[in-house]
Amino acid sequence: MTPSTGQPRLAVAIVGAGYWGPNLIRNFSASLDCELLWVCDLSRKRAERAVGRYSTVQVTDSVDAVLNDPRVAAVAVATPTATHFELAAACLEAGKHVLIEKPLASSVSEGQKLVELAEQRGLVLMCDHTYCYTPAVRRIRQLVEDGTLGQIQYVDSVRINLGLVQSDIDVFWDLAPHDLSILDFILPEDCAPTAVAAHGADPIGAGRACVGYLTMPLTGDAIAHCHINWLSPAKIRTTIIGGSKRMVVWDDVNPAQRLSLYDKGVNLTSDLLQEARRSTMISYRVGDMTAPTLPEREALEAVVSEFVASIRERRAPLTDGHAGLRVLKILEAASRSLSKGGAVVALESTRELIALRA
Amino acid sequence: MTPSTGQPRLAVAIVGAGYWGPNLIRNFSASLDCELLWVCDLSRKRAERAVGRYSTVQVTDSVDAVLNDPRVAAVAVATPTATHFELAAACLEAGKHVLIEKPLASSVSEGQKLVELAEQRGLVLMCDHTYCYTPAVRRIRQLVEDGTLGQIQYVDSVRINLGLVQSDIDVFWDLAPHDLSILDFILPEDCAPTAVAAHGADPIGAGRACVGYLTMPLTGDAIAHCHINWLSPAKIRTTIIGGSKRMVVWDDVNPAQRLSLYDKGVNLTSDLLQEARRSTMISYRVGDMTAPTLPEREALEAVVSEFVASIRERRAPLTDGHAGLRVLKILEAASRSLSKGGAVVALESTRELIALRA
Amino acid sequence: MTPSTGQPRLAVAIVGAGYWGPNLIRNFSASLDCELLWVCDLSRKRAERAVGRYSTVQVTDSVDAVLNDPRVAAVAVATPTATHFELAAACLEAGKHVLIEKPLASSVSEGQKLVELAEQRGLVLMCDHTYCYTPAVRRIRQLVEDGTLGQIQYVDSVRINLGLVQSDIDVFWDLAPHDLSILDFILPEDCAPTAVAAHGADPIGAGRACVGYLTMPLTGDAIAHCHINWLSPAKIRTTIIGGSKRMVVWDDVNPAQRLSLYDKGVNLTSDLLQEARRSTMISYRVGDMTAPTLPEREALEAVVSEFVASIRERRAPLTDGHAGLRVLKILEAASRSLSKGGAVVALESTRELIALRA
Amino acid sequence: MTPSTGQPRLAVAIVGAGYWGPNLIRNFSASLDCELLWVCDLSRKRAERAVGRYSTVQVTDSVDAVLNDPRVAAVAVATPTATHFELAAACLEAGKHVLIEKPLASSVSEGQKLVELAEQRGLVLMCDHTYCYTPAVRRIRQLVEDGTLGQIQYVDSVRINLGLVQSDIDVFWDLAPHDLSILDFILPEDCAPTAVAAHGADPIGAGRACVGYLTMPLTGDAIAHCHINWLSPAKIRTTIIGGSKRMVVWDDVNPAQRLSLYDKGVNLTSDLLQEARRSTMISYRVGDMTAPTLPEREALEAVVSEFVASIRERRAPLTDGHAGLRVLKILEAASRSLSKGGAVVALESTRELIALRA
Repeated sequence: MTPSTGQPRLAVAIVGAGYWGPNLIRNFSASLDCELLWVCDLSRKRAERAVGRYSTVQVTDSVDAVLNDPRVAAVAVATPTATHFELAAACLEAGKHVLIEKPLASSVSEGQKLVELAEQRGLVLMCDHTYCYTPAVRRIRQLVEDGTLGQIQYVDSVRINLGLVQSDIDVFWDLAPHDLSILDFILPEDCAPTAVAAHGADPIGAGRACVGYLTMPLTGDAIAHCHINWLSPAKIRTTIIGGSKRMVVWDDVNPAQRLSLYDKGVNLTSDLLQEARRSTMISYRVGDMTAPTLPEREALEAVVSEFVASIRERRAPLTDGHAGLRVLKILEAASRSLSKGGAVVALESTRELIALRA
Repeated sequence: MTPSTGQPRLAVAIVGAGYWGPNLIRNFSASLDCELLWVCDLSRKRAERAVGRYSTVQVTDSVDAVLNDPRVAAVAVATPTATHFELAAACLEAGKHVLIEKPLASSVSEGQKLVELAEQRGLVLMCDHTYCYTPAVRRIRQLVEDGTLGQIQYVDSVRINLGLVQSDIDVFWDLAPHDLSILDFILPEDCAPTAVAAHGADPIGAGRACVGYLTMPLTGDAIAHCHINWLSPAKIRTTIIGGSKRMVVWDDVNPAQRLSLYDKGVNLTSDLLQEARRSTMISYRVGDMTAPTLPEREALEAVVSEFVASIRERRAPLTDGHAGLRVLKILEAASRSLSKGGAVVALESTRELIALRA
Repeated sequence: MTPSTGQPRLAVAIVGAGYWGPNLIRNFSASLDCELLWVCDLSRKRAERAVGRYSTVQVTDSVDAVLNDPRVAAVAVATPTATHFELAAACLEAGKHVLIEKPLASSVSEGQKLVELAEQRGLVLMCDHTYCYTPAVRRIRQLVEDGTLGQIQYVDSVRINLGLVQSDIDVFWDLAPHDLSILDFILPEDCAPTAVAAHGADPIGAGRACVGYLTMPLTGDAIAHCHINWLSPAKIRTTIIGGSKRMVVWDDVNPAQRLSLYDKGVNLTSDLLQEARRSTMISYRVGDMTAPTLPEREALEAVVSEFVASIRERRAPLTDGHAGLRVLKILEAASRSLSKGGAVVALESTRELIALRA
Repeated sequence: MTPSTGQPRLAVAIVGAGYWGPNLIRNFSASLDCELLWVCDLSRKRAERAVGRYSTVQVTDSVDAVLNDPRVAAVAVATPTATHFELAAACLEAGKHVLIEKPLASSVSEGQKLVELAEQRGLVLMCDHTYCYTPAVRRIRQLVEDGTLGQIQYVDSVRINLGLVQSDIDVFWDLAPHDLSILDFILPEDCAPTAVAAHGADPIGAGRACVGYLTMPLTGDAIAHCHINWLSPAKIRTTIIGGSKRMVVWDDVNPAQRLSLYDKGVNLTSDLLQEARRSTMISYRVGDMTAPTLPEREALEAVVSEFVASIRERRAPLTDGHAGLRVLKILEAASRSLSKGGAVVALESTRELIALRA
């Protein structure tokens, strides 16, 4: 059981042993390229429970113990969003690479500072946009990149469940980061949201939106839309992507057939401009559907691999701080739209967003 | 094979033998309470094909032949929307009761005139809001009325398919009438949309929105939303209704389990106002799901029955002209919102809408 | 509305207006190649109801009226199984071509006589094995014929529902004819059942098997199996066909994806005989799944077409009397097995069965 | 993190770290009532990999090290079936309680000896019939026990997948133990299989049956049937249980709705004996379906709890050696039937089987 390469293992600490922490512990423990040194949580008991009774991994309730340990090269942060900025900044200032849960921070300005700090120090700042590392999303990205789907026409995603009503953030900040990070990951370089309209409702009196709809016009007459909902009796996690050549449905709660690739579509013929005859100029393509086989790899294992590889290769990870920042910009605009009763908020920085993606 | 009551049969004509007409022909033919006298279509050939080679029903391409036949007491109109007003007005002026396809007319003002005309003449004007007569929707209405669902929290409906791109109307006017008429049918009397925001996209260059999202705040912190789409590779027709006591999912493409009634929900306790402790004041209810048995009756058969009954009983049908008018008001507001890039358009007449429902 | 070819229309009568009759009436009426002259039923009222109030088709309760009408060239028989032999024989003796519901007759000897009678008279005797004319089954047959599936390994079919407990026949004779006619239709020429074991149960005391299992070894180490059941709360109609190259699942209650073609399988390498190393000689193929688009044609329309075509072209129809006879032989063997408590009954005539197929 | 009771922890060793071992390690590690002392495997490397790099649990490749450790009170055995007898016997002779994977042993006589040995020594011998500890199966057992289902009419189970073709056992011995142990667990005390017919096929030339069907008449005109298959492209794990009062479908690959309880059935009226009128004496009940909420507990956690509890309380566990023995008796009879080409093999010991259950 030696590292998979000849290189020394990456010494890692995990901060936050709550909901997501145990998954990080399991995957960092399993990685032959890492040495898990610390698990840290405000509650030492929770940290102990997370590593289990038979573990040799050290637990602590002191972040300083982690930051001051010169062996620690990288820190994975899985704490509440409100603490992301302070913790990640402290890690970066202590010279540690950082893997951070979504969303990157509580605001664009905080996120911006983290990105800059990491760049100044030459450290990796990676967002744990876990879904981007699922075999399904990687395949979708590939189908976009290699032209299989053609031009993107719309992206519609639904992520609803009877979910935990959060006490500090609304349903947009809780669930939409998943969809926005996926959207950021799969859209081609010349395509990005140009505006945001957010409609929400709080029908249970929770003090924050529990049902939300996010509409985003995309460059080039396309549109993206998310339905996020904490109050749905049924668990639905479906994303449909319409393309000019093919269309794909990703149903994440159907493990037997997560991806369905349809050779279906609507075509306008070249006589498009002959307005009078237009109705006859439309043709339909109704071909076969293919469900590609996907490998069964756990996404978080790939997150850990990418984190290690980006550190070793001194390169940006696939989902770097900029990706996290782009997600934050849309979330902030969504909050602004929501506070204006659903008004459309332009993403003035779209060109900048696209530039950032390039 | 005598009429189901002692009363004489209602003499009926059908105008329009295109897409929907044959369904009307089949159901009016099967009704023992009706006598189908005419099938009329601009294309006599189409009318002939619709009745079949072995039919004794008269066909014609002349509406006047129908209107001038004194035996005809009622006319069912299944022609393109643009012709609804003129045809229905002519029928009413000729003293015939009218059953008309959705939407009632091309505009609120046209619809208003039809409603007034019918009232002046003491004639039945019924909208063929077919879905309202399905066993599933009738059961939902009953679950709302008898308090099973509790207070409505949200209504989310998705009606997408690789559908016919229409040459005269956009996806809102084509598909949303279904969802809006259902919404109108199931909402309690004190609840109605207060505003509309419509977001659409035309990514194929068809000249009109092919993908659409309709958001409608409802009285009392609730929200309604429709996703309508002509470009979806998968056919989805699902409506989820969240209530304070129970939630229901209607999946119209799953005949084995169209309705699922969930004893699930989120509750705030009475200490709601103690802001600081709010996060602990939320409780979840995760009970059983029940799929009620529904009768297998065809909706259109019930439409014909209701049409006949309302004429005989000289009363408004369940889906009368006012219902059609309420749908038109939302469609017009949606078009206004769409032309303003998704701006929220108040339905100033909400109180009026509610009044109309009462 | 002239016939689709230049030929005169085929004059047809339908005998039996009960459960299945109306479907025959609808499809023969719609065929431009047929002239529907008579609908005959013991109950004249039932015949009248079946054609409807607006029909010009003649109804009668006298089979003789039909048989003596020299215009009638062909008769479609949709009456209870017990009457098949007598009715079909009378039709053939009157010189009429016959389309008959499944099963062909009540016994092999009866069926044999019908086949001989038709051959002596040079008349078409066609079994309405409707499922064989569905787009799904035709595609499966094609996948077998063109070698896509490779060698057939097993055919497993499940046809269960809360079905009508018949008063005259058990669940084998009621439901298995569907599966057996499909099996007969799709198996390659050199493959046929060699024996039958039938296991049944009558847990409700109906006097006949209500739950049944039919096992049939096939030539070449393959196996076929049917589960038929009148007492199932869920409606399942699934057939799985394992082939050495590909496998197919036909789910008839899922219209959105009836056929799923899997590039999956288990391979033994050529070192197969090296017993000791066998466990390592197995490899798995887990490729993509494809759901082919199928046309939306109603099967019974294709039945009518094939009936007309076989008469005009003076050839055997795809599902001729011999096909019906092969089904009867298995049903009889199943009854024999059942009466012996599930003993395996050899189909001594397998070679003959295969010969019959050739 | 003290034991859940005041009692000292049960010192446990796990033998076998292959396919199933890691699941035992995870669950015994998590149990606060156990102290996991050893993980033993012929391959020390596999044992090390199974506990992970950060574990304090001792690993060994010597069973004797485990057996000779006087601290070890109980051993969980997860090795190939062929080794079960020798290993379990050695553990029992060393005075250790035993939890053993299914099937209990390779033959009835071996199993019988283990049962006797455990009884002589006053030790717990528990079979890890994991499925019996799933919330779904426990609920089904309860629905039988409390009379909700009424009299059992049939049990039909399907367990098919593209599964690992085993090198030492056929598909019956590999997969049917699941279904047989479940059947044994849920059937009421006065109901048991009376005979077995096994039909199998080896269409790939693997040297053993890869496709299998098991038919078992049950006391009282009921029937049980299993379809097990290593060559299915689709993964299906569905058990349907027909009862005189209600019917239940357990779909184990649908986590959102594993159990569906149908208020459906067929009733014969009391005039049952009036043969002539029988056909009219049948009535159908088509009521609602309910999907009960099930707790989300992992089955193996409950297995560990029951193992600990039975040792502490000096009582037989829910799935004791006798349960394992009853499964073995049916498997042996199935092999006998298979070798006789599917002949029905009486379970002469049915009365004994029932006695054993009591």
